[in-house]
Order: sequence, then structure tokens, then C-alpha cells
Amino acid sequence: MADTIWVINGPNLNLLGEREPEIYGHDGLAGLKARCEKAAAAHGVSLRFEQSNHEGEIIDWLHAARISARGIILNAGGYTHTSVAIHDALKTLKVPLIEVHLSNIFAREEFRHHSYISPLARGVICGLGARGYELAIAALVDG
Amino acid sequence: MADTIWVINGPNLNLLGEREPEIYGHDGLAGLKARCEKAAAAHGVSLRFEQSNHEGEIIDWLHAARISARGIILNAGGYTHTSVAIHDALKTLKVPLIEVHLSNIFAREEFRHHSYISPLARGVICGLGARGYELAIAALVDG
Amino acid sequence: MADTIWVINGPNLNLLGEREPEIYGHDGLAGLKARCEKAAAAHGVSLRFEQSNHEGEIIDWLHAARISARGIILNAGGYTHTSVAIHDALKTLKVPLIEVHLSNIFAREEFRHHSYISPLARGVICGLGARGYELAIAALVDG
Amino acid sequence: MADTIWVINGPNLNLLGEREPEIYGHDGLAGLKARCEKAAAAHGVSLRFEQSNHEGEIIDWLHAARISARGIILNAGGYTHTSVAIHDALKTLKVPLIEVHLSNIFAREEFRHHSYISPLARGVICGLGARGYELAIAALVDG
Amino acid sequence: MADTIWVINGPNLNLLGEREPEIYGHDGLAGLKARCEKAAAAHGVSLRFEQSNHEGEIIDWLHAARISARGIILNAGGYTHTSVAIHDALKTLKVPLIEVHLSNIFAREEFRHHSYISPLARGVICGLGARGYELAIAALVDG
Amino acid sequence: MADTIWVINGPNLNLLGEREPEIYGHDGLAGLKARCEKAAAAHGVSLRFEQSNHEGEIIDWLHAARISARGIILNAGGYTHTSVAIHDALKTLKVPLIEVHLSNIFAREEFRHHSYISPLARGVICGLGARGYELAIAALVDG
Amino acid sequence: MADTIWVINGPNLNLLGEREPEIYGHDGLAGLKARCEKAAAAHGVSLRFEQSNHEGEIIDWLHAARISARGIILNAGGYTHTSVAIHDALKTLKVPLIEVHLSNIFAREEFRHHSYISPLARGVICGLGARGYELAIAALVDG
Amino acid sequence: MADTIWVINGPNLNLLGEREPEIYGHDGLAGLKARCEKAAAAHGVSLRFEQSNHEGEIIDWLHAARISARGIILNAGGYTHTSVAIHDALKTLKVPLIEVHLSNIFAREEFRHHSYISPLARGVICGLGARGYELAIAALVDG
Amino acid sequence: MADTIWVINGPNLNLLGEREPEIYGHDGLAGLKARCEKAAAAHGVSLRFEQSNHEGEIIDWLHAARISARGIILNAGGYTHTSVAIHDALKTLKVPLIEVHLSNIFAREEFRHHSYISPLARGVICGLGARGYELAIAALVDG
Amino acid sequence: MADTIWVINGPNLNLLGEREPEIYGHDGLAGLKARCEKAAAAHGVSLRFEQSNHEGEIIDWLHAARISARGIILNAGGYTHTSVAIHDALKTLKVPLIEVHLSNIFAREEFRHHSYISPLARGVICGLGARGYELAIAALVDG
Amino acid sequence: MADTIWVINGPNLNLLGEREPEIYGHDGLAGLKARCEKAAAAHGVSLRFEQSNHEGEIIDWLHAARISARGIILNAGGYTHTSVAIHDALKTLKVPLIEVHLSNIFAREEFRHHSYISPLARGVICGLGARGYELAIAALVDG
Amino acid sequence: MADTIWVINGPNLNLLGEREPEIYGHDGLAGLKARCEKAAAAHGVSLRFEQSNHEGEIIDWLHAARISARGIILNAGGYTHTSVAIHDALKTLKVPLIEVHLSNIFAREEFRHHSYISPLARGVICGLGARGYELAIAALVDG
Repeated sequence: MADTIWVINGPNLNLLGEREPEIYGHDGLAGLKARCEKAAAAHGVSLRFEQSNHEGEIIDWLHAARISARGIILNAGGYTHTSVAIHDALKTLKVPLIEVHLSNIFAREEFRHHSYISPLARGVICGLGARGYELAIAALVDG
Repeated sequence: MADTIWVINGPNLNLLGEREPEIYGHDGLAGLKARCEKAAAAHGVSLRFEQSNHEGEIIDWLHAARISARGIILNAGGYTHTSVAIHDALKTLKVPLIEVHLSNIFAREEFRHHSYISPLARGVICGLGARGYELAIAALVDG
Repeated sequence: MADTIWVINGPNLNLLGEREPEIYGHDGLAGLKARCEKAAAAHGVSLRFEQSNHEGEIIDWLHAARISARGIILNAGGYTHTSVAIHDALKTLKVPLIEVHLSNIFAREEFRHHSYISPLARGVICGLGARGYELAIAALVDG
Repeated sequence: MADTIWVINGPNLNLLGEREPEIYGHDGLAGLKARCEKAAAAHGVSLRFEQSNHEGEIIDWLHAARISARGIILNAGGYTHTSVAIHDALKTLKVPLIEVHLSNIFAREEFRHHSYISPLARGVICGLGARGYELAIAALVDG
Repeated sequence: MADTIWVINGPNLNLLGEREPEIYGHDGLAGLKARCEKAAAAHGVSLRFEQSNHEGEIIDWLHAARISARGIILNAGGYTHTSVAIHDALKTLKVPLIEVHLSNIFAREEFRHHSYISPLARGVICGLGARGYELAIAALVDG
Repeated sequence: MADTIWVINGPNLNLLGEREPEIYGHDGLAGLKARCEKAAAAHGVSLRFEQSNHEGEIIDWLHAARISARGIILNAGGYTHTSVAIHDALKTLKVPLIEVHLSNIFAREEFRHHSYISPLARGVICGLGARGYELAIAALVDG
Repeated sequence: MADTIWVINGPNLNLLGEREPEIYGHDGLAGLKARCEKAAAAHGVSLRFEQSNHEGEIIDWLHAARISARGIILNAGGYTHTSVAIHDALKTLKVPLIEVHLSNIFAREEFRHHSYISPLARGVICGLGARGYELAIAALVDG
Repeated sequence: MADTIWVINGPNLNLLGEREPEIYGHDGLAGLKARCEKAAAAHGVSLRFEQSNHEGEIIDWLHAARISARGIILNAGGYTHTSVAIHDALKTLKVPLIEVHLSNIFAREEFRHHSYISPLARGVICGLGARGYELAIAALVDG
Repeated sequence: MADTIWVINGPNLNLLGEREPEIYGHDGLAGLKARCEKAAAAHGVSLRFEQSNHEGEIIDWLHAARISARGIILNAGGYTHTSVAIHDALKTLKVPLIEVHLSNIFAREEFRHHSYISPLARGVICGLGARGYELAIAALVDG
Repeated sequence: MADTIWVINGPNLNLLGEREPEIYGHDGLAGLKARCEKAAAAHGVSLRFEQSNHEGEIIDWLHAARISARGIILNAGGYTHTSVAIHDALKTLKVPLIEVHLSNIFAREEFRHHSYISPLARGVICGLGARGYELAIAALVDG
Repeated sequence: MADTIWVINGPNLNLLGEREPEIYGHDGLAGLKARCEKAAAAHGVSLRFEQSNHEGEIIDWLHAARISARGIILNAGGYTHTSVAIHDALKTLKVPLIEVHLSNIFAREEFRHHSYISPLARGVICGLGARGYELAIAALVDG
Repeated sequence: MADTIWVINGPNLNLLGEREPEIYGHDGLAGLKARCEKAAAAHGVSLRFEQSNHEGEIIDWLHAARISARGIILNAGGYTHTSVAIHDALKTLKVPLIEVHLSNIFAREEFRHHSYISPLARGVICGLGARGYELAIAALVDG
């Protein structure tokens, strides 16, 4: 399972393609998943792709992945800016983490400029849309 | 279903009537629901009335109602002041939203004075108890 | 006179209909007064409707109404956010107060998010335009 | 006229005796004026005693008194905490100023702890009720 | 009347020449008016020149001038830093506004560094004394 | 059931023994439960011991225990610092509450220094590891 | 001893007359004591007059006087702005307290604008030099 | 002497039983000492119990105990929130420290929420009255 | 050379006419220079007109002009808000300084509202485009 | 030249490989340039790679590249957090910008968490070392 | 006695050599005194060297030295950051003061970055250990 | 070259002797250099003495000196308070650094109280004029 990259998406990402398409693009979550799977396959790794609106469920997945995964890509949506609980879950990771955001959170409201996730990530990629997920997969696999 | 107004209640509102009755009154959640249904009927619309202590469940309901409802009345309780995730869900609404609070949150602790919901609502009604819900229904139906 | 509801409007509301109509609507102050009078009549109460650009005059009216009125509806305009003097006048009220704003002040500039009036009001209604005044009259009369 | 002490009272002090008597006492403004006149007479000076709810009128009186008065006692009520315009008027004074408050403003809300008047006063007396006015008269007359 | 430039002066400017002459100069308000009238005449426009210590009166004048004037020059004195009500009045202007201050407010106390007027002005001129008014007239007339 | 002490543990405490053992110790959640049960038995009370990563579930348990329990011991983990919703649930308690943290939260990051729980607790014990739970049980039983 | 007013002076007041005479005047502490004794005698009460540079000693004196004194006049010097310990001692007083400062602390550095003493005093007198002590004695004796 | 636990109490604790008994209880300092001695004896250790209103004396005691004591229990009263000097003394300790407060400082004024002691303590116990001291002794002795 | 006015322009002003023309206008830097030279000639003074993207070079020019120039007009662009080094250079000026900005910096982002230059300028002109430079030249020459 | 990607590096990046290698890695700037050139070649574009310790020089390069480049990759080093001048230069760009940092700036000092560059970038990549540059090139070329 | 330099050391400096030797070095206070005496002798002045953990005692010494000393070297330890009372004592000095710290306080916790002493000192030397005291003596004697 | 001490001076120090002589003294930069060279010679080391108004040039010199120098003395002038870029350059130093300021920056404006240099320096000397440079040389050479 150390060959599996987990991609964990937080609240409202299930509406991808419908929500503020001028910011997030017109492709839905299924399309994003497909791009990620293709990228993973190209790098010879498998993928687990999840989405939840529940903070606790995201924590559960992080616990599940924390040792056995090849790496974790986390887009925690709105919880990025408020969740100490997710922050604490990330402190337990034994595997590398990359934080991804579809939009450039620094070009948006002030309250999106602080992330409880960034200090615990190896790296952060934002503003590059679905491409950012592909780049994160590449970075996790070949460093 | 565009004739259905959703009333979504957040954490601890299930204790209505038991919790700080000097602030919230002695009527329980069932009584509140009954008053709302009566008001909806008087305006010729149907009503869906929900309550949850789970932030994720509130987001799920907002997604369900975001296009098809006549309008949404949201009392997000304590999540009002902390939830960027609900804020983001509200950004996806295609139908009007009215934020309601039973108590006057501006006469209470400082941390209740900021709402992540208000900037995305058409209007805000607070401090008028169950009457505030009835007024919100009236406002959603006849503008 | 305990059957009289006072509606007190603050600075710039005399320009209603001309000022930022995309926010405040196209009806003028006379139209607002007419709607309020109609609503009051429907509830069997009389109405006194005032507007002033002078902070001191608003305080004078609050003093005049503080005991004898059925209730007070106050839209203090820009003084909402700056006037400790009006706040102090409100502390002397023996009758219920509802704060009303035509626009949703929480969706506007940061300096409009704090109100010296709210902590002393029974309730707050904002963002519902002239409809908010009607709802406030209803709330004052039948609770 | 250099034998005249001006006592200038700001907004809501016309309600003295009616407003929050547990803080401000039961005597009305007329009673306060009588005590001040008696104290002034005892010190051999005359008194001018004014009250207004209008910021501009207070400024007008300060201009009238700024050179010719023996001294000025100012209780600017709520304008104490918000009025740069009164602050600027006080900068033009050629005669001594004592700031008085009936209540102890430092034992009340945070927003009452800053005064635009204090930095321009010779001295400040607060919390001693009507007695504070008498002491201020004494201090202005015999230093 | 579109050939009339309004010059509106706020609190304490009636004391010009007497108040802090090392900052404001020795010329009185009449002298300032004369210089402005001369400058207006030189540019072929007429002038209306007002001063008041009352916030409400300043708002009234802004309403009077907001459509018909050639332009408005506003030195709101102490209200510059505190008046949301004047800010709101300025939002209704259909004619250009230039904010003027006799002194350099940025070289003075911290509380003078924020202006509720500047964001709504075409331009700001400060620190140039009466000369600043003449330059503002020039700027309003010939762009 | 008034003889039952509830011990409610928040997010990530299921990883006890694995997560930052230099801070939290090497014993797991089962070991902690065993120590608590032993301490409860020694004081002649029974124990209910729960853990969840879900904010809503913690609120549900608090509601269940709020009247019938002997007392509540709450270690809300990361929700301690962010959850107004749990704060509101605690306001409804009819039984005593002791807040416990395994680590000394005041020796850690700044964002762990504020607790939404502390103001509603009878007492707070932190930094004493599992021993803190035992002491809290003792304090709840024999005062 | 209920006829004894305590006057307690804090750090550096032993240098009175030598320290910043343009602010504090040229009279020394002995002169201040003499004026206070004369004022006390004129009001038929006795006086205890103390000064210390030690925070703990000031607390000791407050404890000694807290029940038996007629009233306490406290000029805590620099401890005014920093001492929670003195604040706590003042919370135990059963007798009235007046806070006095020789200089107008509000016309000085920002850090002198907050007092841990004021919220617990009946009244505050500052800026009136030694005269302020006399006025405080008068206020304590005849209300 | 490594069998001696030091209990060091700060300012105003000598008034225990007299000061705000609704917060601190009716037992005096002697009673507290007796309870601590009994608890120490039960754990087979001796006790040194001190109280001072002087910051410097508390520092002196900390220096005396810093190496030879079994552990230190410190309730620094008001100095808790202001003393960098005590903080620095605590940095020199070679023995474990537990901070204790009789009241729940987090349910009181904002300025009591920060402690210069907590970051240097092994643990913190507050709000449990004299019982908190007993628990601290237990924790120091048997871990 | 005391007949020479220096006009010093900071970073990005070389792009004038290309950069955000809706804010800065369509005329380039050469056009601005021409207008300034014409204005200077009309007032009988000569002009030195510079632009640099380098903070150090601006300081060098200020040193060169600080004694010999008739006056200095400085538009420091982005360095306005960040450069203590330029602030210090301005402290050494023996000749008058007018700060100019093409746009109204107070109607733009918050970080543009503070200027390290303003406190050291005789006056500030902003928001009047190239016209502001001409007015500044006029103000420097004929007061 | 629209086939040229500019890579602009700011202060201290010339020390790459020598400076804090545990953060920045052991490869020098030449190695970074080589990796970027290889990546560019792989994507069929050419590369211009620059480094300077001078803020003004970075602005000059941005001006040179702002229209003709295929895209810009900017690692502005310490200027990232302080330079409004570079921010203004970026506002003039007609081509896409990606901000890159070798280290994860969000896991470092507080003053590195704000960037004047991010709001103007299409995307941000940080914490991925030299790999981040390669990913940025990929993102600029194939979206 | 004008040939005597006072060296006054504040709280915890009696533990020098024992306390955090990696910061403060291994030499004790006696060694520091010896180095200072040697330096003083080399400059032909005598030395008085004191240490106290009591804020009041430090103030007493400053009073004793304020006129007659050649100069004062003050290392107030933790009181540096909190004592307005010492600040006020320093305002009475007639002789030069140099503030010294053994460690570099600016490389330590945020709360050590503000000093109530620095604004009243001629100079500040920190981070140079005992050598800093010697340099301060040199600076006091030969300028 | 390890026998060479670098003295690097920042912006405006080239005006030494002309700029604010009441703060900086009447001696020019050449005089300062001469004093430093004399002091260096007395300690048997050579000196390199530089000054620049350009931030980038200061960084270049720091890079040049970072390994080979005996030590560095840096007076970065206004860049002290704003330059993260210089801060980063200082992080690369392998040789000791002493920060020097001619004036006592802590007795001046608030914005001069924070230094990006101090946390990376061995020690700081300020307020002692040119003497401070001599003391810094002494400290670098003989510890």
C-alpha cells in the first residue's frame, strides 16, 4: 500500500464544476479524480481519492493513511483555515504531505491567507487548478 | 420543490426550551417547527425543517437545497462564528438565504459578533425569537 | 400615545431612492413612510416617522419617545457605527427597540460591521429593504 | 465675564435623575445646576450652565467661552469618546479646563476608557457624582 | 449653478487665524473666503463658501450641492476622521470632490491619519494652507 | 446513572501512544481508559469513556450526559481552541465539568492558549498526562 | 480608627519636588503631607500618610486599612499601570477608595492611560497636583 | 530536604477566607496550610508553606528551593500575569513545578488568562480550590 | 541651482501610460516630464526630472538636491509605503518637499494608506494625475 | 521571445548550496539553472535565468519580460515579504506569473507568511526545492 | 563620590553561573563584580556593585545614585520589560545611564524585546556577556 | 584576511556630520572611519570600511565578508527596520556580527524599535555614537 497516494478533498469540493466556475473551472470532481488517476498511473503508483464535507471523516482518513501511504495530497477546503483538529492529525503523519488548492487562496479574502495545514506540509501548490494535483503527484513520486 | 423553504438549524438547537430559557424561551424545537409550518402554510409554501449538531450534515443539506428550494433560513448556532466550510457552501447557493438567530447575538459575547454567514445572506434577523423565523418565511415568500 | 410606533431615520436617508439605488432601491423616503403607515394601520397602531441628518435631533426624538411610545424602530444610518451619544440615549429607553437597516451591513465595508445600537436593541433586521421596516412593526406589535 | 465659570454638559444629561439612577443618582439636571450655582457663589464667581445633545452646539459654547471665561467644566457625555471636533475646539482654549464625569467611566465599558478631552484638560474628576462638579469649581477658583 | 464651486468647511474653521496660528496661519476665515473667491473668479466660476460646527449641517450642504455644483471642496475638520455619516453623504455625489486640509494631517497625531473622506474624493491636497484651496479650485475647473 | 462519570475525548486521542510520544506518553487510549476505570472504581463510581474525531458526536455525548451524569471530564483535543458549538453545549450542563489536557497546552503554540471550554469548567488540569484524568475523577467525586 | 483616612503613595513620590518639577511642582512629600493633614483636620478626621517604593509594602498597607479606615486615597505611581497584585488587594476593600494622580496621566505617554486601580475606585482625580489630594479628602469625608 | 515540597503563595492570599469568599471559599490560609500538611504527610513527604505579598521574596524562595526541594507548588496570585522576574526564576528550577490557582482564572477577567508561569510548569491545576493543592501534592509525589 | 526644482519619480513610473491606464492615465513619463517643464518655465524656474526603480538611487538624488534645490517633488511609488531609508534621507532636507501621487492612494489597498514620506513633506497632493505635479510646482514657487 | 520563460531569483539565492543547506539543499545556483534549462528544453521553450540582490534590478527585469515572455517564475527571496515596488511591477504584467520558493515559507518565521507577490501570481509553489521550479515551468507551458 | 560608577543588577542575577549557562556563561556574580572592579580601577574610578531581586530596592539604589554617581550601569533583569516604576525612577537621574544585558534579548522571546529602560538610557549594550559591563564602564568614563 | 574587520554602513550615513547633528554628532563619515581604523590598529587588526545607500550593495558586501572576515560591524541605517533581504544575508554568516547604531534607536520613533538584524547579531550597541564602533571593534577582537 506504500504505493498508494491518497488524495483527500474537503468540504464543497463535491460541487466542483458547479461552484464558482470562474474560480474553480468547469470540470467536476469525477474529472479531477480521473486526471489524478491518470497521473498516478503514469508514475506507476495507485491512487485513493476521497471527498467529505465532514471534518471528522477527513481526520479518520488521515489516520488511515498516515503510515502506509506513499504520500498524501490534501485540499481541506474551508477547514484549511480553521481546523486545529486536522492540524493535530497531520502532526502524526509518517509520510510526506502536499497541500493543494485549486484557486490561489492568497488572491482571495484575508481569512483564507492562514492555513493550519501549511506548516506541516512538505510543500504547497495553489492556484494551478487540477494541474496542481498532477504536479503534486509528480512531486510525491519522483521527489 | 421550488415551493419548499428549508429551515436548517445548527448545533444545540435540539435542546431548545431546555437551554438558557431566559435567552431562548421555553418552547422546544418541535414547537418552533410547528410555528414555522403554520407560517409556511399561511404563505402557501411547504417547509423542510432540519437540525444537526454536525457541521458536515449542515453542509450536505445546503447542497441539497441550493438550487431547488424556494429559499433557505439558516440558524447555524455556534458554527455561525467559526465555519468557513459553511461559508463556502453558501457561496454556491442559487436561492435566497436569510440568517436567523433566536437571541440578539450582538448583545452577547464578543466572539458572537462576527458571522461567516451574514455576508452571503440577503438579510439577517436576530433577537426576535421564534417570531424571527416567521418573519423570515414571510420575507422569502413575498419579498 | 402608547399606541404610537416611532420610526426614526438617520443621515442620508432623505436621499432614499436617489442614493445607490442598487443597494437601497428606487423608492424614496415618502414611499417608505407610506409603507410603514400602511403596516401600522394594519396592526391597529399609529406611526410617527422622522428623518434627520443631525445626531442631536435623533437623540432628542429618542428622549421624546423613550417612555410613551409603543416601540421604536431605529435606522441610524452612519451614526450606527460611531455614536456613543445615541447608545447612551438608547440606554434610557423604557420601550422596546428594533434596529433596522435597508442594506445588509455585514456584506459591506468592515467599519459597518460594528453597531453601537445592536447591544441595546431587542432585535436587529437588516438587508430586507423596506420590507424590514414592515416586519419590525409586526414584531413590535404582536411580539 | 472672567468671573464666570462655564459648565457645559453633553448629550443625555438632560435626563439626569431618570437615566440609570443607580449610576447617576436621582437628582435631575436642575438639582445639579443648583448645586453648582451654590458652589460658585460660595467661591465668589458666577456660573453659566448649559446642556445640549448637539455636538455642534457644544463646540459653539466652547468657542464663546474660550477666552473670556474664568474656566470651563466639561462633561461631554458620549461625545467624550468620539469627538475629534470637540478635541480641536479645546485646543483653542485660553482658559483652564476640567473634565468631569458623574460616573467612574473606568469601571464601565472599554469604549468609555478613552477620552478625546482628557489630554487637553488641566485635570480630570470622575466617579464622584454631583460632588465632582463642586470640587472642579473649587479647583478652578482657588487652584 | 453648475458654474458654482462649493467650499464647505467643518468645525473650528470659524476660528481660523486665532487657532494654533503656527499651524493654520494668521489669516481668518474671511481672508480664506476672499482668496477662494478671487481664484474662482479668475477661473470664471462662482463660489459658495460655508462653514459649520454641526455635522448635520455639513451633510445638508453636501446634499444641496451633490448634483448641481461644478465641484465640491471639503475640509471637514475633525469630522474627517470620525464621520461615517459624511462618508455616506459623499457616496451620493454626482460631482467631483477634492478634500483639502490646511495643515499636513500626516505630520500630526495618529488619529488624524485616517480619513473617511479620502476614499471618495477625486484628490486630496493637504499641508499647503490657503494655497491648497486655490489649487483645488484650479484642479476642479481645468482638470 | 448519577453515579457515572463521563470521560469524553476529542480528535486524534485515538492515536494516543503513537502520536508525539515525547509529549503524550507511550500508553494508548485503552491504557488510559483502564486507568480511569480503576480510579472510578476506587471512588465507587462507574465510568463511561468515549472518543471521537467528530465535533458533532462530542456535542451529542455532552447532551446525553448533561443532566444524568455525576460529572464530565472533557479533553476536546483540537476542538478546545476552535469550537463555539461545544462551548454552547457546555452552557447547557447541569453537572460539573473538568477540562483535562494530557500535555501542558500553555507550553505549546500560541493558538493552544485559548480554550472555549475553560470558562465553562469548574476546573482545569493540564500537563499531568494520564494522572490528570485520575485527579479529575477524584475531584469530581469527593470535591 | 474609622476616623482615619489613609493616604498611600507609591514609587518615586519620595522624590516629590525634585523629580520633573514642571510636572509635579516644587513642593516635597513633606509639604504634601502637611497639606493633607491640614485638610483632614479641617474635616475632623485624622490622617495616616505613607510612601513606599515597594509594591509589597503598598499591598500590606492596603490590607491594614481595608476595613478600619474611613477611606483610602491611593497614588500608586508607576504600579498604577502594571500591578494586578494591587488590583487584587483593592478588591478586598470594605472602605471607599479614591485614586489620585498629581499629573494628568492622560496627557502623558500611552502606557499611563490604563490603570489597574480605576475600576475599583469610587472616583478618580488627576492633574490637579496637591490640590487633588485635598479634594479627595473632602470627597471621602462629606461625600 | 529532597523530601520537602514547597508551597509558595503570592500576594493577597494572606486574606484567604476574607477576600471574595464566593470565589475563594471561607477557609483561611491556615486552613489551607493544614490541608496541605495533611496531604503531604499522607504521601510521606514534608512541606514548607510560605506566603508573601512581595515579588522579590517569592523569587528568593524559588531560589532556595530550586535544587533541593522534592517539587514546588506555586500560586503566584496577581504576579502570575505580570512577572517576568518570577518567570526567569522558574527557568532556573531543577525540580518539578505545578502551578495552582484556587479559582478558575479562565472564567474571570481577560488579563488573568495569560500566565508567565504556565509555560515553565509541568502542569497547571485551577478552579478546584484547596483541593487543587492536594491534587498537586499527589501529582508531585507519585507522578 | 536654487532655481531648480527636482522632480523625483520612483519605481514603475517608467511604465507610465502602459501600467493600469484606468488609474494612471495614458500619457507616458515623457509627457509628464514635458508638462512639468512647461509649468516650471511658466514660473521662471528650471527643472530636473528623474526616475529610478532603485531605492538607493532615489536616496542619492535626494542627497544631491537637499540643499541646493528650490524644492523637491517626490513620487516614490511603492517605496512610499516601505522605505525608512528614504524617510531618513528626507529628514536631512533643507529645502521644501511636496509629496505627489498620480492616483488617490487612499482609495486603494490598505497598505498604500501609510506613507513614510508624508510626515516630512510640507504638503501632499494625490489623485489629480499629472495636474498634481503642476500644482506642486506652483506651490513650491509662489508658496 | 514569447517562447522564453524568465526565471528571476532575488537576494541571497546566489549563495544557494552554501546557505542553510538543511533548508535549501546542497546544489548551487548553477545547478538550479541547469535543471531549469533542461526542463525548459524538454517542454520546447527557451529560458532566461537571472539573479540579483538588488530590488531595482529585479523590477527592471520584470519590466523587460512583462509582455514578451512566455511566462515568469519569480522567487523574490526576502523582497517577497516587503516589496510594494515589486508588487506594483507585477501589476503591469501581461504574461502569467508563478511564485516559487525553495523552502516551505509557511513552516518558518511569521514574517515570511505574507507575500506581496502571491495575490498577483497565477499560482504559488513552495517547499519542493528545485523540483518546484521544474513544476512551475511545466505549468507555464502546458497549463 | 562623583568618581563612583554604580552597577545595579536585578532579579535572578545572583544565580549567574548557575542559570542557563549556555546563555549567561559559567562565571558567577562575584566574577562579574571582580571584572567590573578591575575595569573601573583601570579607568581611575571606584565602583559600587549591587544586586537585588526586589523591584523596590532597585528603585531605592537608583534614588541614592541619581545625583552623586559618575554614571549608572543597569541590568534590571526581568523588571526591564515590566517596570514603569523603575522607568519613573530613571526619569529623575541627573547622571548618565547605560543599560546592559548579558544575553542578546532581541534573539529571545518576544516579551523581552520591549524595555522600559532603553528610552531613558544614553546607550544600550547587549549580548556581549560580562564584556558588555566593561565596555559600559569605558563608555561612561571616557565618553 | 581573517584579520580584517568589516564595518558596513547603510543609507544616509554618508551625510554624517550634516544630518541631525544633535543626534548624530558633528563628525563626518571620514572622521568615523579614522576612529575605527585607529581602534583596529590598536587591536592589531586591519579594517575595511564601507558605506552605501543601496540595499543590494550591502548584501553584496555581507556575502564578500561572510567567511573570511574577523568579524562584521553593521549599521544598516533605515534598512535595519525593513530588510528581510539583509536578514537573510546575515543568516549565512560564519563570522561574528555586532550591530551598532550611533543614536539610541529605542528613544526614537516606534518604527525604529524593531530590527531585522538584532536576532542574528552576537550583540547590539546603540546610543554611544562613534564610541560604539570602537567598543564593537574591541569586543570582536578580544571577546
